[in-house]
Amino acid sequence: MQAELRGPSCVVEIGPDKPTVIIGERINPTGRKVFSAELQAGDLSRVPKDSQAQVTAGAQVLDVNVGAAGVDEVEWLPRAVQMVQETVDVPVSIDSPNPLALAASLKVAKGRALVNSVSGETAKLNALLPVVAEYGAMVIALCMDDNGIPTVPEERVAIAERILEHAQKVGVGIESILFDPLVMTVGADHRAGRITLDTARLLKEKLGCNLTVGASNASHGMPDREMINTVFLAQLIAVGVNAPICNPLKNALAVRASDLMLGRDEWAMNYIQTYRALSAMQEQPK
Amino acid sequence: MQAELRGPSCVVEIGPDKPTVIIGERINPTGRKVFSAELQAGDLSRVPKDSQAQVTAGAQVLDVNVGAAGVDEVEWLPRAVQMVQETVDVPVSIDSPNPLALAASLKVAKGRALVNSVSGETAKLNALLPVVAEYGAMVIALCMDDNGIPTVPEERVAIAERILEHAQKVGVGIESILFDPLVMTVGADHRAGRITLDTARLLKEKLGCNLTVGASNASHGMPDREMINTVFLAQLIAVGVNAPICNPLKNALAVRASDLMLGRDEWAMNYIQTYRALSAMQEQPK
Repeated sequence: MQAELRGPSCVVEIGPDKPTVIIGERINPTGRKVFSAELQAGDLSRVPKDSQAQVTAGAQVLDVNVGAAGVDEVEWLPRAVQMVQETVDVPVSIDSPNPLALAASLKVAKGRALVNSVSGETAKLNALLPVVAEYGAMVIALCMDDNGIPTVPEERVAIAERILEHAQKVGVGIESILFDPLVMTVGADHRAGRITLDTARLLKEKLGCNLTVGASNASHGMPDREMINTVFLAQLIAVGVNAPICNPLKNALAVRASDLMLGRDEWAMNYIQTYRALSAMQEQPK
Repeated sequence: MQAELRGPSCVVEIGPDKPTVIIGERINPTGRKVFSAELQAGDLSRVPKDSQAQVTAGAQVLDVNVGAAGVDEVEWLPRAVQMVQETVDVPVSIDSPNPLALAASLKVAKGRALVNSVSGETAKLNALLPVVAEYGAMVIALCMDDNGIPTVPEERVAIAERILEHAQKVGVGIESILFDPLVMTVGADHRAGRITLDTARLLKEKLGCNLTVGASNASHGMPDREMINTVFLAQLIAVGVNAPICNPLKNALAVRASDLMLGRDEWAMNYIQTYRALSAMQEQPK
């Protein structure tokens, strides 16, 4: 399954035989107090910096989320999207539960954007899929529905199939969907990683689809989260996750090493380039 | 396939549903100039220290190799084996190409040892398998033969099957063998990791056997070898390598994180214990 996102003047290809595409997660106030406060004060000055740093570190798509308390996303999400694309030439992943904010952002996004996200929840499907179709966007589909997140991989896959059915009815085909098998924390359930890996493998086998995942959710509350995130990304990419959402400043080298060990990086060019870019960033004054 | 190694008074189980067994690789003069010089001077004082440190870091089996230039392995390998087992209660992996040194070491090893290694090379098969059989040991079988190391996974598996046939003829069953799919460096061939992973998967599917591998060979000459070794161990363990040879001081946490993400570590007990042991070691004066 080949897919593509587009920025102002770039194309990002997503497919099983392509290098893994990194979706940078940093432009998001969740867990970032200073950024939340800035957003609440109408200050987007961090957005260009975070955009540049993530792209330098190897992100090919940037997620944009302004969902802090009191922030009017309908106004501020499109502004942030524009600011990202004035700074770097990448496709954006527009991240909001608000259909109006998504529509307003899709209107100003250049190229072909990704919508983050729909799920099997009826209200979301009905509100968001027509917007995705209208703008010819791609969309992330979370394997959960009105009953929550199943713990059985086959049930998560069944939700994915129902989302696909709905999507196709409004003209959004499988090539326009990144399925997300979802990750719970291993601290709460030691099978959480296994369930995600099995779901990813099944989705890939049954649907032949492209896959994303927010890998770092798994390690909440554990010591040395970096180690867990690295190992989990390596395993997820090996079973077919080809567009993970992560922090490229921390995880880009793990992604490139995973591609390298899977035989997807001739002469280790991408690995070495990422190594050099990250080393140069660490040497620069912040 | 369930297997077990034994130390002076401990049992180490190896099997697909068990936690990954770490075989510590440090007692080996290859690439360690000081240790080589000490061995050449008949000084084994580093052996107890290396034994204790590796076991504290999480090794459950210790590889013992004294193959430095000018060292009489027939005399010194059994001495080193005894010294290891006087220091820590673990099974040993007796590492030598010399059948007399192996036999002398098997004679003094307590419990059930691992012989490292045979291959499909005719001379090795004929010289070593009878010794393995005589002592009821386990043995590592390298997927190479008189023609070298094939680059095609199916050909490596065919060698494994020929080794197994020979072994069974002299009374060494599949439950007594750890197959090694072998690792070449990705710096020389970017498909090297992929070939090893595919070989491991095929060996597991066709033979249902236990697997070892020296993962760190893959990263020779690359920047940030630690990252590549971590990622590769995670991928190898996911496809069935359940007794890797590695440096536990550097890689034990990656192994435990891999088990955790594969759902093999209830309450994350092993991961957290290893994290604490390694943290305590780093805080101690050397």
